[in-house]
Amino acid sequence: MKKVAILGSTGSIGTNALWVISKFQQHFEVVGLTADKNVDLLEKQVRQFNPKIVCLADEEKTGILAERLKGYPGEVVGGQAGLIKVACQADVDLVICAIVGSAGLIPLLEAIKAKKQIGLANKEALVMAGRIVMELARQNGVKILPLDSEHNAIFQCLEGKAPGTVKKIILTGSGGPFRQRMDLETITLEETLKHPTWQMGKKITVDSATLMNKGLEVIEAHYLFDIPVSDITVVIHPQSIIHSMVEFVDGSILAQMSVTDMRIPIAYALSYPERLAGVLSGLNLTQIGMLSFQEPDLDKFPCLSYSYEAVTKGGTGPAVLNAANEIAVQQFLNKEIKFTDIPKIIKKVMGTHKIIESPTLDEILMADTWAREKARNIIKN
Amino acid sequence: MKKVAILGSTGSIGTNALWVISKFQQHFEVVGLTADKNVDLLEKQVRQFNPKIVCLADEEKTGILAERLKGYPGEVVGGQAGLIKVACQADVDLVICAIVGSAGLIPLLEAIKAKKQIGLANKEALVMAGRIVMELARQNGVKILPLDSEHNAIFQCLEGKAPGTVKKIILTGSGGPFRQRMDLETITLEETLKHPTWQMGKKITVDSATLMNKGLEVIEAHYLFDIPVSDITVVIHPQSIIHSMVEFVDGSILAQMSVTDMRIPIAYALSYPERLAGVLSGLNLTQIGMLSFQEPDLDKFPCLSYSYEAVTKGGTGPAVLNAANEIAVQQFLNKEIKFTDIPKIIKKVMGTHKIIESPTLDEILMADTWAREKARNIIKN
Repeated sequence: MKKVAILGSTGSIGTNALWVISKFQQHFEVVGLTADKNVDLLEKQVRQFNPKIVCLADEEKTGILAERLKGYPGEVVGGQAGLIKVACQADVDLVICAIVGSAGLIPLLEAIKAKKQIGLANKEALVMAGRIVMELARQNGVKILPLDSEHNAIFQCLEGKAPGTVKKIILTGSGGPFRQRMDLETITLEETLKHPTWQMGKKITVDSATLMNKGLEVIEAHYLFDIPVSDITVVIHPQSIIHSMVEFVDGSILAQMSVTDMRIPIAYALSYPERLAGVLSGLNLTQIGMLSFQEPDLDKFPCLSYSYEAVTKGGTGPAVLNAANEIAVQQFLNKEIKFTDIPKIIKKVMGTHKIIESPTLDEILMADTWAREKARNIIKN
Repeated sequence: MKKVAILGSTGSIGTNALWVISKFQQHFEVVGLTADKNVDLLEKQVRQFNPKIVCLADEEKTGILAERLKGYPGEVVGGQAGLIKVACQADVDLVICAIVGSAGLIPLLEAIKAKKQIGLANKEALVMAGRIVMELARQNGVKILPLDSEHNAIFQCLEGKAPGTVKKIILTGSGGPFRQRMDLETITLEETLKHPTWQMGKKITVDSATLMNKGLEVIEAHYLFDIPVSDITVVIHPQSIIHSMVEFVDGSILAQMSVTDMRIPIAYALSYPERLAGVLSGLNLTQIGMLSFQEPDLDKFPCLSYSYEAVTKGGTGPAVLNAANEIAVQQFLNKEIKFTDIPKIIKKVMGTHKIIESPTLDEILMADTWAREKARNIIKN
């Protein structure tokens, strides 16, 4: 019986993780759940999975949750301190870190310090503070299992392979809904939110359309697998069947495939090193018939280039890229800016940032705050 | 320095193995070489690689080789006893078993008994006596590294994975040169020997065209990886980029890819568990652009069905299938029969064979002899 805490249980990763857990309930016990604001769904999840502790990050609403759960034997906590309390519960074996954005960083670091195994979906944490996160994981002997399909694929391809035999990581991406679109200026929010292959949250759906998601994944892969960014390439693969690949020094490539459903990588992270039998039906390659590959168009989707630039510069660069992107995406979701303004805002913020090399966590958080402020001010002016 | 003996060094696998060894000569020492009849090439190889011992299986020609190598400090031996002597040399670490057909079986078994690591290209040995070979390998703690691209791919996909997590093996095949041909009756020998993707010996090229090669590989995979034959499927993949796949119980598939060149799997078997850097240039998937998959046509290529039938019946069944096929292919190469007669001969021989369950090696060899005789008599009558 693996004891699991899920940080961000009402989001897309969280609900899918709970789907897997409820399908294989003989293997898992849910010890803790947390959400940002969604009291209704969290309450429902608490009643279904009976965690010992539950947290609402939005402290203004914690009272509402406590009221709703009156008589529930578990503990109700709030705020960032509450998130950390859930992650660090003594009997938790695995913490699923599925908080979106930079808010997930501190709870992740605390869970690592508490020597919990980590299932990581919160890519922004690695983007912002990859070196710090991975160093802390090494110090504490903590294995980080990536939950997103690409890094989970790479993890599977690398598993059991001799160290020093990797030449290159090949990240695949669907190319987003605008892969074949000529005019990006006229893209609407509604079009953007219809992703052709994956069902995901709004922020990541916009990131998929700008290819920033792939860019953040490049940075994430760099830290997670300790591979130079120059050895990480992106290939557009519209069918999203191959989730990523590893090329070895001898010219062999290993690729991981599955149906396009995030429950497959989530289940693997939950059950690792075992596998759960029959999570979803297998892949029928002869029915799919064809897999295709092409180069990404960096002129059309500059966010991908900016990501390479940020991680090559290093230090606070990736944190600034990520923060500027979060603000720009929020503004696009609020219909305050156009789709094509997203890379422009990121470029402007990155252009005025003075990189701090080997930053402390405080310096990273300050750079993050600075970049958000800077990004917000761009449309004000 | 790994010390290598190559049984069948003048064939297609043998010459490619020597190509790899000469490219990475700091890692390997060639201790022994053997050939069937090709004195000229064997002499050349001996002068290049300086093995301690060299064997010509064709005893009538051993004298010619000894004459040519007069003054050479190494030992010259002949016949099956000579093959065994080369394989079992005290200082050999790895024996590359690349003899084509059933002639390779006894030297393989002796090398296993001598506890040599095996690089296995001789698929007929596993087809004939898979259970005996694998049992002997287990008893002697010998690892068998498959050299052909498909099984090497499966080996790579399985490496480091938790036992009991495999659901299915998916063998890929190019479909051969007649995949899209309507009328198989008119196929000539010359057409057959032009394989679209792989450069191989004549026997295996014919087997590729009839899909018998894929059938033999199904049987080989069954024994090599201890997977029920009902969990082994064949997918036609004309580009021959994915060399085979493993599906795990959770719906994940791992696939191994590379350029279509047997030096990649050969190099891996030579260097395992390490990898040799830069054997050949890597794969450029965006240049290839597209990978396609389809079901094999079992009505058009019945040899594949016969293979499933033979291994399902078990016992001496696969040995009989293999022997009948070897004779039929030889007759086709001699222009004595038509392309479409190959499966007919196999079917007839299999139809009159009385299977011996759990046969001894002698019983297998007797079934082999019986099936050859039977196959030869078909065109005589």
